[in-house]
Amino acid sequence: MGDIEKIRDVARKVIDTHKQGNRMVVVISAMAGQTDGLITLANEMVDDPDPRELDVLVSTGEQVSVSLLAMAIKAMGYDACSLLGFQVGILTDEFYGKARIHEIKTRRIFEELEKGRIVTVAGFQGMDDKDNITTLGRGGSDTTAVALAAALNADVCEIYTDVDGIYTTDPRVCPGARKMDNISYEEMLEMASLGTKVLEIRSVEFAKKFKVPLHVRSTFTNERGTMVIAESKDMEKVLVSGVAFNKNEARITVSKVPDRPGIASLIFRPLVDAGIVVDMIVQNTSEEGITDLTFTVTKPDFYEAMKLLSEVAEDIGAQKVLGDENIAKVSIVGVGMRTHAGVAQKMFETLANESINIMMISTSEIKVSCVIEEKYTELAVRVLHEAFGLEKEKDSQ
Amino acid sequence: MGDIEKIRDVARKVIDTHKQGNRMVVVISAMAGQTDGLITLANEMVDDPDPRELDVLVSTGEQVSVSLLAMAIKAMGYDACSLLGFQVGILTDEFYGKARIHEIKTRRIFEELEKGRIVTVAGFQGMDDKDNITTLGRGGSDTTAVALAAALNADVCEIYTDVDGIYTTDPRVCPGARKMDNISYEEMLEMASLGTKVLEIRSVEFAKKFKVPLHVRSTFTNERGTMVIAESKDMEKVLVSGVAFNKNEARITVSKVPDRPGIASLIFRPLVDAGIVVDMIVQNTSEEGITDLTFTVTKPDFYEAMKLLSEVAEDIGAQKVLGDENIAKVSIVGVGMRTHAGVAQKMFETLANESINIMMISTSEIKVSCVIEEKYTELAVRVLHEAFGLEKEKDSQ
Repeated sequence: MGDIEKIRDVARKVIDTHKQGNRMVVVISAMAGQTDGLITLANEMVDDPDPRELDVLVSTGEQVSVSLLAMAIKAMGYDACSLLGFQVGILTDEFYGKARIHEIKTRRIFEELEKGRIVTVAGFQGMDDKDNITTLGRGGSDTTAVALAAALNADVCEIYTDVDGIYTTDPRVCPGARKMDNISYEEMLEMASLGTKVLEIRSVEFAKKFKVPLHVRSTFTNERGTMVIAESKDMEKVLVSGVAFNKNEARITVSKVPDRPGIASLIFRPLVDAGIVVDMIVQNTSEEGITDLTFTVTKPDFYEAMKLLSEVAEDIGAQKVLGDENIAKVSIVGVGMRTHAGVAQKMFETLANESINIMMISTSEIKVSCVIEEKYTELAVRVLHEAFGLEKEKDSQ
Repeated sequence: MGDIEKIRDVARKVIDTHKQGNRMVVVISAMAGQTDGLITLANEMVDDPDPRELDVLVSTGEQVSVSLLAMAIKAMGYDACSLLGFQVGILTDEFYGKARIHEIKTRRIFEELEKGRIVTVAGFQGMDDKDNITTLGRGGSDTTAVALAAALNADVCEIYTDVDGIYTTDPRVCPGARKMDNISYEEMLEMASLGTKVLEIRSVEFAKKFKVPLHVRSTFTNERGTMVIAESKDMEKVLVSGVAFNKNEARITVSKVPDRPGIASLIFRPLVDAGIVVDMIVQNTSEEGITDLTFTVTKPDFYEAMKLLSEVAEDIGAQKVLGDENIAKVSIVGVGMRTHAGVAQKMFETLANESINIMMISTSEIKVSCVIEEKYTELAVRVLHEAFGLEKEKDSQ
């Protein structure tokens, strides 16, 4: 099995670091495909699995890998001990499937470390105050690692992934993409939420909050990856650190809505109730008391959102609801743009030079996002990457 | 998946009983093949898996099935809640893989029952006093069920199996085998330890100790099965309740051993150290200070036992060590034989009539066991079954 060999690799890596005199706590996620397999099993059993029981079920994925890792380490001659969420004391709220960590007990982990053991901890899982098993949602193992690093006051939290660091943009789209040595928490948050899938956004928020330095690096090499750290003066010298894109959104326009107080809340209420997250929202200036409201939702939520909005459109006196799935969001991110004017303007010009039409614009202190036609995504990423000087080597341009 | 359908069946059965006004705690074992699959995974990882980590790993089998069962019950419109060993508070000693239950907390279970919920409990698993996960060994789910029934003061512990009750002997060997309505704990213990694999021996010991009535019945029908209960006067009227057999033993003879004090302990010490369990032991009367010691071990232990004994044979001055794998143990069991003479004699005669040679004999208050050549097993079982009047209908003889 490939999974077995992967866990052995992790064990060797862990032992190498242990031999350098480091006390180590290793968080591991489920083996590839396990979590999805367990969810499939639940869906074969019932249409809509009970959330509490689903957490009991899917948390076995990490339970399997964490015990196998401890076995592998022990078989290589080093002492190890696996701990599950309830054994560590990873205390969460009671929101099954997306629980948030309240507190992490450290007594048991320190006890095991004192015995010279390597502690392997099951990621993704915790326990509420009634001893029920909870899970932290997708990417939860990263969150477990960062939260543990904060609780244990660790020097660094190393995140091993299948890529060797954070890139200025997706190298599959832009061959000139460059691995960054450092990136600030804020930039990483924007990159993560904008579609760069290396790190889960919650784990970065946690790291930022508790000032845990993250080292994002490859499972397959020993090379330095990218450090995600607090912002430094140096970082501001760079206007734009990276280009992110997201093809998983769709655009919805509620057109010709009477512009009166509370109208936006009437439109978004049914979406909120259905658990649909709205991303970019743009409202045009009202003309003669009539306005258009445009926003994006994720593609999987698109059809339900359209259905719900068609139902409310009449009630609020909107003319119609328009949808467009063929869009993408392209963003430039950088803490440097806070102190420099003209960055957004340069982005618009760069896209205009390629005759790429901008449908929506949204900005924050450290990012500018544009919604464009989906088919221009790769082109837009490449020209922006070049325009902001992010290429690997200058002479390759 | 067949397993999914099986769990749905269990859910329906549980709901039927619940609707009759019963408060129910349901213990479930892993789905077919799961435990073996997990053990295989561990053996692929390392040659000799760490026992603590192996328990963390294999306990996921029950965690999967217990959550699926609770999901199924909830989806059918009844409230349910799964509990793992640590959540119930099934406290055990720290002997991984074969832990014994010390104590069962009942607070959480009663809380859930008070809410009108059906409680599903993961079998086979517990927790030691340091929060480590332990497992109870093979058949541990039966033990969990009986121990819970005792702790909760349940009216009855129903054991659902793939057979519809306890038979006078194996129906595959003897077509005239009859399902028993009742059997005493003592008889069941003898039947279980003698190779009838319906109930694990430890669960019967537990039931006997805490006077928990067991109802062994089929998962596939609603018919009454066999009650395993305390001995009653009626039971003594029957001389022999059943015929058991076991082909999984091998015979070893250490021949011409100087008969001096402590010799048996010298012979058995290396076996005990290697964890090899010795079953029947027969020592012939000493002639001129020389004796033969014959005993049986399970077939999987046979070669190791022979090797260990060859090593000590010289030290203790034995002439040689003889082994025979082609044996079987056939036993008659019944509380009635306590008060009746001649039962053993009738067994010997019945076997002699078929020219079946008896190699070893061992008796207890309620059973007589004979070791014979393996090839005569089925014949011996059939003639004994008939000789002691255990046939289904008298006129079928």
